[in-house]
Amino acid sequence: MTTTGQAALIGGGVIGGGWAARFLLNGWDVNVFDPSSKAQRKTLETLTNARRSLPALYDTSLPSEGTLQFCETLKEAVTDADWVQESVTERLDLKQQVIADIQKHALEGAVIASSTSGFKPSELQATATRPAQVVVCHPLLPLVEVVPSALTDSSIADTCHRVLTHLGMKPLLIRHEIDAHIADRLMEALWREALWLVNDDIASIEEIDDAIRFGCGLRWALMGHFQTMWLAGGEGGMRSMLAQFGPALKWPWSKLMDVPELTDELINTIANQCDAQANGLTPRDMERVRDDSLVAVLRALKQTDQGAGSVLKQHNQQLQKAVTVHEGLLQTVRRQVPPSWMDRNGHMHEPHYLELMAQASTRFLEEVGVDDAYRSAGFTYFSVESHLKYIREILAGENIRILTRILGTIEKKLHLLHQLQTEDGTIAATCETTLIHVDLNTRAPCLPSADVVTRLAAYAASHETLKQTLR
Amino acid sequence: MTTTGQAALIGGGVIGGGWAARFLLNGWDVNVFDPSSKAQRKTLETLTNARRSLPALYDTSLPSEGTLQFCETLKEAVTDADWVQESVTERLDLKQQVIADIQKHALEGAVIASSTSGFKPSELQATATRPAQVVVCHPLLPLVEVVPSALTDSSIADTCHRVLTHLGMKPLLIRHEIDAHIADRLMEALWREALWLVNDDIASIEEIDDAIRFGCGLRWALMGHFQTMWLAGGEGGMRSMLAQFGPALKWPWSKLMDVPELTDELINTIANQCDAQANGLTPRDMERVRDDSLVAVLRALKQTDQGAGSVLKQHNQQLQKAVTVHEGLLQTVRRQVPPSWMDRNGHMHEPHYLELMAQASTRFLEEVGVDDAYRSAGFTYFSVESHLKYIREILAGENIRILTRILGTIEKKLHLLHQLQTEDGTIAATCETTLIHVDLNTRAPCLPSADVVTRLAAYAASHETLKQTLR
Repeated sequence: MTTTGQAALIGGGVIGGGWAARFLLNGWDVNVFDPSSKAQRKTLETLTNARRSLPALYDTSLPSEGTLQFCETLKEAVTDADWVQESVTERLDLKQQVIADIQKHALEGAVIASSTSGFKPSELQATATRPAQVVVCHPLLPLVEVVPSALTDSSIADTCHRVLTHLGMKPLLIRHEIDAHIADRLMEALWREALWLVNDDIASIEEIDDAIRFGCGLRWALMGHFQTMWLAGGEGGMRSMLAQFGPALKWPWSKLMDVPELTDELINTIANQCDAQANGLTPRDMERVRDDSLVAVLRALKQTDQGAGSVLKQHNQQLQKAVTVHEGLLQTVRRQVPPSWMDRNGHMHEPHYLELMAQASTRFLEEVGVDDAYRSAGFTYFSVESHLKYIREILAGENIRILTRILGTIEKKLHLLHQLQTEDGTIAATCETTLIHVDLNTRAPCLPSADVVTRLAAYAASHETLKQTLR
Repeated sequence: MTTTGQAALIGGGVIGGGWAARFLLNGWDVNVFDPSSKAQRKTLETLTNARRSLPALYDTSLPSEGTLQFCETLKEAVTDADWVQESVTERLDLKQQVIADIQKHALEGAVIASSTSGFKPSELQATATRPAQVVVCHPLLPLVEVVPSALTDSSIADTCHRVLTHLGMKPLLIRHEIDAHIADRLMEALWREALWLVNDDIASIEEIDDAIRFGCGLRWALMGHFQTMWLAGGEGGMRSMLAQFGPALKWPWSKLMDVPELTDELINTIANQCDAQANGLTPRDMERVRDDSLVAVLRALKQTDQGAGSVLKQHNQQLQKAVTVHEGLLQTVRRQVPPSWMDRNGHMHEPHYLELMAQASTRFLEEVGVDDAYRSAGFTYFSVESHLKYIREILAGENIRILTRILGTIEKKLHLLHQLQTEDGTIAATCETTLIHVDLNTRAPCLPSADVVTRLAAYAASHETLKQTLR
């Protein structure tokens, strides 16, 4: 299997739609089979939201989108697929039947992955004709729990790891299959306790959600639970934490093993409070609200290289292409503009212009040899002046590029012009930047290396011959 | 009680140190009493980390720091205190004794709050001479669970809400006291399940932390659990979610009621894996790593106004002062530079210069009448040009200000000069900005209102008379 391929998605609901978006926007072709009359609309709506949010995570453009096809039959969907993802309703007999149907038509070497949040792969394999190709891939983005059984071929788990990483996800290999894998075990434990709190009228669902999102949830997003507890133990670490709070675990604080009876009354209480908390937003609206925040949080974590941000950082590097030449100039930036970059006037907020121009300078400098190794040797360029002109408003979702040329270079000084263009070639902004070559130890100006000088001169000469209009 | 006051902290460990930082950096005076020989060092170390991170959350400066005093006796610490916070070891008899000691010397009107994560206020009050002033304030920042009992005076809970909000925290009133309040119930439920997973060798602590921080933890940080589940229910919302996944809650998936025996072996396994995951970082180091990410995440959520970001946004507005005049010019920005704004060259990354300059323009415009109301009427200024000069490197933690003057204004056009100064008055950067008055509906230039013209003219005249050096 190459880095892209053909995916077949059986079931196109919330989970199937999410898989469709992830595969398509990473360049895979996708077949969807779902007999429900709503499936096509739901998948397309999910895709619309994803086209807005997924590219917003990256500082480079995603691959060209793959082709999406809704199939009339399961056979048509899976016949040529490299990856078949089953996301039907959470019923074991149904999933077993679907896997049997898939195996009638799918390639022997294909991955057949189930999105099940609860069943063990061995249960799904019990009635399969070729259990070796069956595995659980339970998505909780960017996490994917990859659960093979003893019968799953080890090459299948390897392929899962490679493909999922390439899709920008974080595969977590679960070494011993158990019901509900790991993440859902933890979520169920918390959920049971939460249901009791509502059932016993201790707290409303909003109060419980507040207790999480203003408190423990923030830490969990960064560090998970053990690292949070380790840190709460202070200088004594985990031993001190267990010594102080371990005994309390035995106190009869909770009713965890029991589950409150899901009476109509309790269901009404919970569902009504959830609807009220949504404050008039439909799930699709709320999906966008969530996605905007998720994008913002993931981008923040990318900067600190912690938690899910480190996965994003790696995927961004993987997607980053070599600098190409466009209209004779270096194309130093190519990306989609994130919704979170809009200001209250509905267009791109000023600082992001300079963020893009700074990225362009960095890419240009790498191209002439001022890269990580050069910096490690103690030298780089510092910006001393930036002159920005905002020519046209830039809107969320626009695909933009920056073309960079040398206006001049003499000794320590480098003068660049960045032109920010929209898809149709309109120049939306320009930035003239003056940079000075410096010694990072003394922080004082000095001359660049002979190699950098030579490469700069070559670009300067080629740019000189261009009849590019300057705005 | 005014907006600041005198806090007495009994116990200066991880929790007490956190309270010290929160009170001091919001302008309160703080007395600490803790007989432990390490308490003073630990509190000061926590404070050092907090001085780096708390101001980084805000786009304005915090109040002048209060005075910190380590007291020899509990009496000395609490005598004049408006707020007494007890954060001693989690033992009921000890906490009851400490509260009795506090009540011997504290003001009758003072809040006596316990940081207990587990005990009910009624248990703490059982031996108190004045139970009415005793309340639980359990911090899990920015969350604080405020738990009164039936004996707690209602004015005490009101004061807690007001003071904690003023400190930038999110008070959550727990209406019915129960063991471990709400947040710790949820955390304990998850922790028990996690301990079983380690005990049964299903997963390592790092795998469990990964399952959280790459998956459910991200959603919890934004939305808590019910809203996450509501959204996972798709168009059917919570009813659909409960119908599909409710039954699974009854399956014997977990061993929640039991707790694994905390044998030396299990403690060793957990503690060793936690230490390994820390990868050589001490808790203090890790505190900074966490704080940098927390700051970045909270600032991201502030922008989308979701979850804990909305608390921060409100607190920022509360702290924002009127524009003052400095050296005859308007001081449009005053803040500390966050560590997260540093680039890999160890100084402030370019786009943040423009971010600060854009804030300065916004504040200046508000000052001449181009405020929210003016914008709602359909008019504002758009930037058309920004000319930045970077004169001196700016480092993390520096206190900076921006002074703004009018260089000229004619008809639709406004020409400003922002000077960014460090604490000692050195000009570290300048930005000449050209703005055009526009009609937000047509997006075309038009003339500003007569009132704005008048106010601009007044500032222009006063700035004209200044002999300010331009750099």
